[in-house]
Order: sequence, then C-alpha cells, then structure tokens
Amino acid sequence: MSLLTVGTVAFDTIETPFGRAEKVIGGACTYISWAASYFTHNIHLISIVGDDFPATELAKLKARGVNMDGLRIVKGGKSFFWAGKYHNNMNSRDTLATELNVLADFDPVLPAAARSCKYVMLGNLTPAIQAGVLDQLDGTQRLVALDTMNFWMDTAMEDLKKVLQRVDLLTINDEEARQLSGEHSLVVAAATIHKMGPKYLIIKKGEHGALLFHGDEIFFAPALPLAQVFDPTGAGDTFAGGIMGYLAKTDDTDLENMKRAIIAGSAMASFCVEDFSLNKLQVLTESEISQRMQRFKRIMHFELVD
Amino acid sequence: MSLLTVGTVAFDTIETPFGRAEKVIGGACTYISWAASYFTHNIHLISIVGDDFPATELAKLKARGVNMDGLRIVKGGKSFFWAGKYHNNMNSRDTLATELNVLADFDPVLPAAARSCKYVMLGNLTPAIQAGVLDQLDGTQRLVALDTMNFWMDTAMEDLKKVLQRVDLLTINDEEARQLSGEHSLVVAAATIHKMGPKYLIIKKGEHGALLFHGDEIFFAPALPLAQVFDPTGAGDTFAGGIMGYLAKTDDTDLENMKRAIIAGSAMASFCVEDFSLNKLQVLTESEISQRMQRFKRIMHFELVD
Repeated sequence: MSLLTVGTVAFDTIETPFGRAEKVIGGACTYISWAASYFTHNIHLISIVGDDFPATELAKLKARGVNMDGLRIVKGGKSFFWAGKYHNNMNSRDTLATELNVLADFDPVLPAAARSCKYVMLGNLTPAIQAGVLDQLDGTQRLVALDTMNFWMDTAMEDLKKVLQRVDLLTINDEEARQLSGEHSLVVAAATIHKMGPKYLIIKKGEHGALLFHGDEIFFAPALPLAQVFDPTGAGDTFAGGIMGYLAKTDDTDLENMKRAIIAGSAMASFCVEDFSLNKLQVLTESEISQRMQRFKRIMHFELVD
Repeated sequence: MSLLTVGTVAFDTIETPFGRAEKVIGGACTYISWAASYFTHNIHLISIVGDDFPATELAKLKARGVNMDGLRIVKGGKSFFWAGKYHNNMNSRDTLATELNVLADFDPVLPAAARSCKYVMLGNLTPAIQAGVLDQLDGTQRLVALDTMNFWMDTAMEDLKKVLQRVDLLTINDEEARQLSGEHSLVVAAATIHKMGPKYLIIKKGEHGALLFHGDEIFFAPALPLAQVFDPTGAGDTFAGGIMGYLAKTDDTDLENMKRAIIAGSAMASFCVEDFSLNKLQVLTESEISQRMQRFKRIMHFELVD
C-alpha cells in the first residue's frame, strides 16, 4: 500500500560524547522515509529544501522507491538546519541552533498521486500545516498518523487539538502525553487522549521503550539494550517510519498487527542510534532487520506455566 | 523449597501527593517476606525490632508460614524508623528521617534450621552484615540473591565487591549499575558486573520496568502501567520477594524460569504500589496474582509473521 510522509528534510550538526557530525543529512521526513523504505517502495514524500541540499541524497531516496514529486526545491534557498549537543547520558540535549530557512514558507501541496495514499505519516510540524495536508487527501485513507511535540502544545494547542480529531494514531513522548492530557498517569492520559481523536496512542519513552494504548489494551515494546548508543537524533522519526512502513506493507491496522509494526519501528530505531545521521539506516539488509525483530521476541518472550 | 530472608523490619512515615501514612509497617524484610509468602510457606525471616513493634503484625507473618525464630526482639528497644516524602512525579523522594535504633546493633544469628535454606534473599544492609549471613549458611544453597544501594557503593565498595563474589543474583537500579560498573551502557555494565560474581543481574528501573541479564541473554519486563501509583515504598523489595518466592516454589533457576519469576515479582510490585504500606499485599488472593501475571503476558506478547 502507498505511504505519504510529510515533514522536514534538513541538515543537522550533532555533538555527542562520542564525536561530532557537521552538517549531515537529517530531518523527520528523511528518517521516516528511509525507515519505511525497507518495508514498502510506494512512498510519496512531501517536503521543502533549498538548492543547497545534495542531489545525491535525493537520488538515493528515489532509488528506494520514494516519489519526490512533492518535494519543493527552492532556488537560492537554504535548507532547514538544526544543531544540537547531547549530554553524557544521551537522554537530554541542548539545541544550539535552529534555522528555519525555506521551512518558514512550507505550504505543502500534494501532487494528485499523493492524495490517495492509504497510509499517512504527518511528521512533527505546525499543526495548521498538518491540517492543511489532511485537507488535500481524498478521504480513502486507512490510517493517518501524526507526530508532534511540546512546542506546539505551548504555542498552538487549539490547532493541535483540532487536527488530532482527524488522526488515527498519535506518537508523542511521556512528558508530552502528560502535558496534552493534564494527567500524570500514562494510563489515564491515554484514555483522555483517545477521546481527543486518536484511537491508537504510542507513547515514546526513549531508552525505556514505547507503550501502545488502544481502548483498554496496552502493549509495551522495550528499546533494544545496546552496548553503545552513538547518536539518538532521528530515533523517534525512524521508529515512526518503521511503524508506518510496516503498516503500509501489511495493510492491517488491527491491534495484533500494530504490535508487530511497533516492533518493526523499534528495530529500525535501534539501528538508527548506532551511528550518526543515516549512516546505518542507508545500508541495512532485510535479513538484518528481520533478525533484529526476532531479538525483540527473545527479549520479551516468556511462557507462564500451571 | 525453603527461603531465607534477611533485612529490616521497620516503621515508615510516608508522604505522597495522595496522602500521608504515619508510622506504618515497613522494612525490606517485611515486604520481601509478604510477597514471597504468596508462593511458598517455608520462609525463615532474620531481622531485629524493638518491643515497640506490634505483635499482631508478627503474628500475621507467622500465620503465612514465616518462621520468626531468627527475629530478635530487643526489650526496651525502638524499631528502625524511616520517613520520606515523594515528589509529584513519584519517581524521586526526600528522606526526612532515618533512625537506626536497634538496627545499629543488628548482628544476625541464624537458627540451625535457617542455615540450610535453599534460597536466600539478602535485603539491602551493610555488605559486611550480608557477608556475615553467608558465613553461617551450610553451603547447600541453590541461589543467593543480594539487594544493595548506592549508599554502600559510596561508603563500603570493597566490602560490597567481596560479598558480590559469593552471590548468584544481584538486584540494583540503573544508576547503581552504572556506579558499580563505571559503565554508562547497561549492556556493558551487566557484562562487568557478571565478572564481579553474580551470574544473574536484575536492573530495576522503577516505572520503566526491569532488565534481567544472564551471559549474553537479556529479558525485559515492563512495570504494569497503572491508573494510579499510590505509594512506591517497598516496591523494589516486593519485586525481589515475588521473584524469590517464585523461585523457592518452583526450585528452578534456569533462565526461562527466571523470566517467570521476574514476572511474578513485577506482578507483586504492581500490587504493592496501589496502596500505602502492606495494605494491599496483606489481602491478595492467588487468583488475583495469577490474573495479574497473565496481564503481563498480554502486554508483552506478540507474534511475528512471514
């Protein structure tokens, strides 16, 4: 099935305790599309870059089945740029620079072929822009997912709540779930957020894994314990990309398949953090991915007796 | 099989955002023994209290099959007392008072019958006292578990390392695992700690669950997501008690059974936090416990296809 991905395609400069990566490829839509491309080759990417963005990188995405007709390349424009520095524990980071550049004028226009994509992943963007994308869809979608962050809760909560009514799956972190719902317990927060629209809620907890809430059902996937987390940048987007790619591939949004999708997303995220930028995500094989999904099975599986 | 539990039997005064409990029953050994008593009725408790400790509470433990011959009751003495206040997120707390009282003279002497217990749970105590207990065992033990904390790493690291060489299972939290090993990655920390002695390592992460490390194998159990965490006091000891009770019941220390034991411990801990003190732990039924273990199965279970 077809997958629509909307979000940033950007440059990142990243400092971690293990090294520094200068002006490397980043952006939510980039990570989402790369992760999803291991599950489906029918992806429509919607984003905006300046003509400083390397054509070779766009060609690589195209070669993986990503349709780039919805990518606007602004002549003489500069691509979105983010710089950040991770602290020693890798769980917190400081933003050193955010240069919107061409992103300030991002007003996504969907090519005709993109409007009927059955699966839609709205990367973290202004809620009004996310809503603008939904306005252009043809209404035949099977599942619409949205990622957002505390910044939009602080500055555009009403817009966010409006777009949430139109969304099937929301991905946010634990503190954002608490802020959005006003509830400390994630169980109570999930019930509150379900009422806002999304029937599936995924709460991301970074190194502590992710929780899926659906009605009264809960599923938990740990993050894969790794000998070294090299760079967490893009892990959340890669996680979402793996989920949406898996859903587009299997075309099944029932709970049992959603669980598998989250394992697929967790596996992709575990690769993402093992190197800077897309270094690892660009060179994976299907067999590596399936072996890693099996590792999650081993880590989580137990049998009750009696 | 028989289980030996060693640790504090105490009074706690606890303040949480949900209320206050004044001088209620607490202590690691109390929580461990109560949790274990739902799995085995062959428990030997080793501790010390003053004669201010209510005889009714001791009688309740006895009624659950806990042999109290190793409990020293000091005439005119006051029992160990701890007071703490939890912050809004329930993940951090301030200690408001620690009165060692009779615990200052705790020099455990094991009655003959306790020396051959096949499973041993050394609650958090001075490492030298934990070693003193091991000295009195008859050498026929199947598994010795030890709980400790950062305080002993700060003040008695050499003693702690010595006793760890004699232990099969160590339970500590994630920060303590990092402190003990000097490694940030829990995977690398676990490998380092295995070399110190314990072939099983359980890293407790509170609301984020627990990791079991055994050689190259990893098992992860989430904490049960709850609508309300009322009071986390004793959750770690209850977790350990559930594990050790389950092991004593099943007498099987293979990895697959260790996984079940951790689920048993996680189930018991999830009950513990639902009320102050032992309020919930004293009134459980076997069917409630087995249903809760099944809930962990539902939260963690998935099937891979292809």
